[in-house]
Amino acid sequence: MERYQVKIAYDGTNFQGFQRQGSRRTVQSVVEEALRSLNWQQRAILYAGRTDTGVHAAGQVIAFDLDWAHTPNELGRALNANLPEDVAVREVTIASSNFHPRYAALARCYRYRLYCQAERDPLRGRYAWRVYPPPDGDLLGQAARTVAGTHDFAAFGSPLSPGGSTVRTVFSAKWEQAGDEWRFEIVANAFLYRMVRRIVFLQVQVGQQRLSIDALAAALQAPAPLKPGLACPGGLVLERVYYSLDRLLPEGLAKPLNASGEEDCG
Amino acid sequence: MERYQVKIAYDGTNFQGFQRQGSRRTVQSVVEEALRSLNWQQRAILYAGRTDTGVHAAGQVIAFDLDWAHTPNELGRALNANLPEDVAVREVTIASSNFHPRYAALARCYRYRLYCQAERDPLRGRYAWRVYPPPDGDLLGQAARTVAGTHDFAAFGSPLSPGGSTVRTVFSAKWEQAGDEWRFEIVANAFLYRMVRRIVFLQVQVGQQRLSIDALAAALQAPAPLKPGLACPGGLVLERVYYSLDRLLPEGLAKPLNASGEEDCG
Repeated sequence: MERYQVKIAYDGTNFQGFQRQGSRRTVQSVVEEALRSLNWQQRAILYAGRTDTGVHAAGQVIAFDLDWAHTPNELGRALNANLPEDVAVREVTIASSNFHPRYAALARCYRYRLYCQAERDPLRGRYAWRVYPPPDGDLLGQAARTVAGTHDFAAFGSPLSPGGSTVRTVFSAKWEQAGDEWRFEIVANAFLYRMVRRIVFLQVQVGQQRLSIDALAAALQAPAPLKPGLACPGGLVLERVYYSLDRLLPEGLAKPLNASGEEDCG
Repeated sequence: MERYQVKIAYDGTNFQGFQRQGSRRTVQSVVEEALRSLNWQQRAILYAGRTDTGVHAAGQVIAFDLDWAHTPNELGRALNANLPEDVAVREVTIASSNFHPRYAALARCYRYRLYCQAERDPLRGRYAWRVYPPPDGDLLGQAARTVAGTHDFAAFGSPLSPGGSTVRTVFSAKWEQAGDEWRFEIVANAFLYRMVRRIVFLQVQVGQQRLSIDALAAALQAPAPLKPGLACPGGLVLERVYYSLDRLLPEGLAKPLNASGEEDCG
């Protein structure tokens, strides 16, 4: 019996989120079903973070214990043969027996994509949010710098368990332009429920001059949920979960981190 | 009553191709249904070319006659309000009363996208074909140069109507690399049924050294369908239909063209 650490990718469109919920089609239940066909008998897989209905992942991380006589690569291929089109195993490694993908995570990276067109584009609606008029790039940049750092994000989401902390540290937040698209990348130790989509929504409001930077800064001081709007789920991708400093440092994060232990939910 | 020339985009995944066929869900039937809600009463719309099941379009062109009291932009918005998520009007203009999107077309541009990964990527499978091992870029380039020019493409598809010509002129064919992806762009006066996907398939065979350039050149001389394999439909997009030289010339097409009149089907 080994503990396997597995990176999975999924198109969230036809899932009711990651986490198992009764008979609903969720990523967790589909992956667990594929595992059972390989004679896996545990109660539940472990995972780095829940994603919401319609949110995608390129690098979600799960873990489970399994008796498997072949190589990790062969395990990946066997799982892919049993998984539907919209989920796939991308990488399999053997982890230490106490590895937990949530508690061991140092940080998470999410990406958000939006496109600026007056009318919808059916070839982009699945993976990007249509925003019009186009936001101003300088204002988006200012908004991202305002969000970066350690804040009590209570205004952006409730704790995942009652009484849990709503303080999170955003290591980096930046926008990049590509044609008529804007792409946002945010790295933080962990995220509150719907936090990324609320942050994106408010930044777009700033970029469209419907909200001032001061009002955004004030929201970061507010003690309770403000219920700002939500950017659509299809634009959001859980890109990567970080377990080592080697991968964090090149991204410009200078100081050593301890595993956050925070509950996470993009 | 005016004749409207309308550029539409669609995600072909959930359509059984463009052309109306009984009660099947096709792009034509969905668009005609939206038009009927605006009191359109003709028998059928006109269109530049049929696309196959699962093939997408960013710039398909249709035309129809309609009594419409408002602006072309407002017609676009009214149609979009009546169209499902996977089809959208991108541009509406008033055309001359005898404009026919197929007969007036000087050329068509299709794009094909593929990605090179050992395992499938659920976030790309809808719009790209997974190819592994990665094809060689020099060989892809040689293959594209072999395809360019005027050839009898009988080996790549049957004529759309019995006895129709299978000679087509490929004005340009080129590959471009983007990370682990290869993107193919082909401009021709018109295309035979499944011609682009057969050309892509054979070029990939060349790129993977499973087929020689000479064998590809011989296929361009073959008088009858060779039934080579087919690249998957999701990677293919009808990008643009050309009605004016202004748009063709910057793409490197030097000589004036007459409307091809060829039946077209990517």
